[in-house]
Amino acid sequence: MRARFSTETERLEAFSDGVIAVIITIMVLDLRPPLGTDLKSLSSLLPTFAAYVLSFIFVGIYWNNHHHMLRASSGIDGRVMWANLHLLFWLSLAPFMTSWVGAHPTAAIPTALYCAVLLLDAIAYAILQTTLLAVNGADSPFAQAIASRWKGRVPIVLYALGIGLAFVSTILSDILVIVVAIIWIVPDRRFEAIIGQESSA
Amino acid sequence: MRARFSTETERLEAFSDGVIAVIITIMVLDLRPPLGTDLKSLSSLLPTFAAYVLSFIFVGIYWNNHHHMLRASSGIDGRVMWANLHLLFWLSLAPFMTSWVGAHPTAAIPTALYCAVLLLDAIAYAILQTTLLAVNGADSPFAQAIASRWKGRVPIVLYALGIGLAFVSTILSDILVIVVAIIWIVPDRRFEAIIGQESSA
Amino acid sequence: MRARFSTETERLEAFSDGVIAVIITIMVLDLRPPLGTDLKSLSSLLPTFAAYVLSFIFVGIYWNNHHHMLRASSGIDGRVMWANLHLLFWLSLAPFMTSWVGAHPTAAIPTALYCAVLLLDAIAYAILQTTLLAVNGADSPFAQAIASRWKGRVPIVLYALGIGLAFVSTILSDILVIVVAIIWIVPDRRFEAIIGQESSA
Amino acid sequence: MRARFSTETERLEAFSDGVIAVIITIMVLDLRPPLGTDLKSLSSLLPTFAAYVLSFIFVGIYWNNHHHMLRASSGIDGRVMWANLHLLFWLSLAPFMTSWVGAHPTAAIPTALYCAVLLLDAIAYAILQTTLLAVNGADSPFAQAIASRWKGRVPIVLYALGIGLAFVSTILSDILVIVVAIIWIVPDRRFEAIIGQESSA
Repeated sequence: MRARFSTETERLEAFSDGVIAVIITIMVLDLRPPLGTDLKSLSSLLPTFAAYVLSFIFVGIYWNNHHHMLRASSGIDGRVMWANLHLLFWLSLAPFMTSWVGAHPTAAIPTALYCAVLLLDAIAYAILQTTLLAVNGADSPFAQAIASRWKGRVPIVLYALGIGLAFVSTILSDILVIVVAIIWIVPDRRFEAIIGQESSA
Repeated sequence: MRARFSTETERLEAFSDGVIAVIITIMVLDLRPPLGTDLKSLSSLLPTFAAYVLSFIFVGIYWNNHHHMLRASSGIDGRVMWANLHLLFWLSLAPFMTSWVGAHPTAAIPTALYCAVLLLDAIAYAILQTTLLAVNGADSPFAQAIASRWKGRVPIVLYALGIGLAFVSTILSDILVIVVAIIWIVPDRRFEAIIGQESSA
Repeated sequence: MRARFSTETERLEAFSDGVIAVIITIMVLDLRPPLGTDLKSLSSLLPTFAAYVLSFIFVGIYWNNHHHMLRASSGIDGRVMWANLHLLFWLSLAPFMTSWVGAHPTAAIPTALYCAVLLLDAIAYAILQTTLLAVNGADSPFAQAIASRWKGRVPIVLYALGIGLAFVSTILSDILVIVVAIIWIVPDRRFEAIIGQESSA
Repeated sequence: MRARFSTETERLEAFSDGVIAVIITIMVLDLRPPLGTDLKSLSSLLPTFAAYVLSFIFVGIYWNNHHHMLRASSGIDGRVMWANLHLLFWLSLAPFMTSWVGAHPTAAIPTALYCAVLLLDAIAYAILQTTLLAVNGADSPFAQAIASRWKGRVPIVLYALGIGLAFVSTILSDILVIVVAIIWIVPDRRFEAIIGQESSA
């Protein structure tokens, strides 16, 4: 039974990897070469480039943690598949948001919406974690690993704050978003512990 | 022999996953950021966004069921490979249709054509199922699983109806399409039974 | 040693599948929704749609045969990897050619160039086959399978003919291209025999 | 423990393959069909086509060597995952750079920036190699394989030179870039030796 589950998980991972690989790469299509060939026309791309870097890091963080969380799970079911598609849906809006916020870096609504999509990504990730918890059971190593969930909750609070702050100053929202990126850039050690345990078993 | 078949199936699945991952993601390229930065310019994107959500769900449903059906099959052959490419062809029109219907949500012909492409997707899926049935044989667990085929036939009828109704009211077609989505959002339990059986064997 | 080779081949297949999946799907990006919503504005897309269908079939044929040929080979080496990238390069021009010939279906030069790219695809495929033959050796089952190479040579002759005929009538070139598609649509039975043999061994 | 590591590596490879497959293919989207249908309008695409060929070869070289380096490694860790995403980030700028340099092949700044991105790719690759070295340990076969690192250092020097020379003559930079491509087009034999060793073990 375990092996079968494992194969199911692998195709889910492979499909998610494919979607995330396309998302992370097509974002660059909005980085259009400038018409001129001088440094000044290049520098006009800086906000779009900065938005691209930030979105690349976020999608990278999600790929990284998605990878760790699925590997720590003993299997998946139909609800996990839809929770995963739900997460991929919100992640797929990254190119759109990056393009809009890159074109208007100091406008309140694009920045607020950027934070809102990040918030929906974080919520979708939390839902996926909950469906995986149901598959693994309350006494599983998976359940123990996510016992302390502050790391998933902090971004949700900060993104919500970022939506509001965008109407005060978009710089403040940008700082909050960068803070979350720094917190999450290190993959979830909790899951690494389980993976290590199972590997040596 | 079984192992070999299984590997063939895996590459077919991997290729299909790749194509579907690209289809589901490039649809978002038609969601162009508005020129303005106010809520009004954002709200003008609503029909395109709604079309994107609906198409994302449909492509997700196909991926999900494709996944289940192929896992329940004991192998593939040359005809299955072409039936699969045929399905991928009609699915690949999703970005085009989504873009057109999103730009003209209340026009009869775009909505009718959207239903027509969904109809061709459903027929292509039925053909793929038939070719897989030929590989598995009439007495296989696969054949038993698809004995009651109403779930595959209902969408075909509803989409055909949707094409006609688009010329009366596009809202009616939209409702039919959403009804089919709800019916299909739950993956096919019939195949899950076989997969479970084989796993415990 | 065999297992290792096999894993190498699998990553080559996986990468090729990824590239081909993107090629086959991004071609649809040139099928832009018409500005109008009537049948007349839709019918103006017919040449582009026809070019898309034809290119989809060609890329599908290459994927299908590539799949069969690699599975029949006992391994790969550095030259195979570059011969494979070379084939992917010419296949990657399919979206460009489809777009140009779709916009000007009766112009001589786009049609001639379309045939020229198909010719280069066929030559690249023949080169890949030759490098695989070197890996497998002259006495291998792989070598026996490709002893009669007419199926690979006929398209090369027909495409070359198609380039010239485009300057007489693009319809004649179109017919030749469709004839090749029909010849190749059935996957190479020669390789299927080897795969079957090895599976039962 | 080894098997587990190996699976980790495989998902990293699969994701990298996905991203590289998208990068290498979407570059072709900037090769827009000319409006005219004569040879003259086609010849105006030559610089863009040449830039596409060169970038395709570079991305192909990275895929090829990335493949060999990861296969020679006994595993990965969190730092390797980020070093790998860092490499993918700079590679993802290839479509942007190809498009800009293709539109202005003789302008100093686009050519200098093209060399600069190639330099950052090379540095990112060197960093990835260093993180893999840390995983494998100083006495590993991996460490021995990279003892002589001139092949990684020569491009770094040549690209840096290419940035400067672009302001003298872009032809000189182009020659340097082509020289590096020729040096690297043959995959790293050092890693092939390890792979061979382990396979026969």
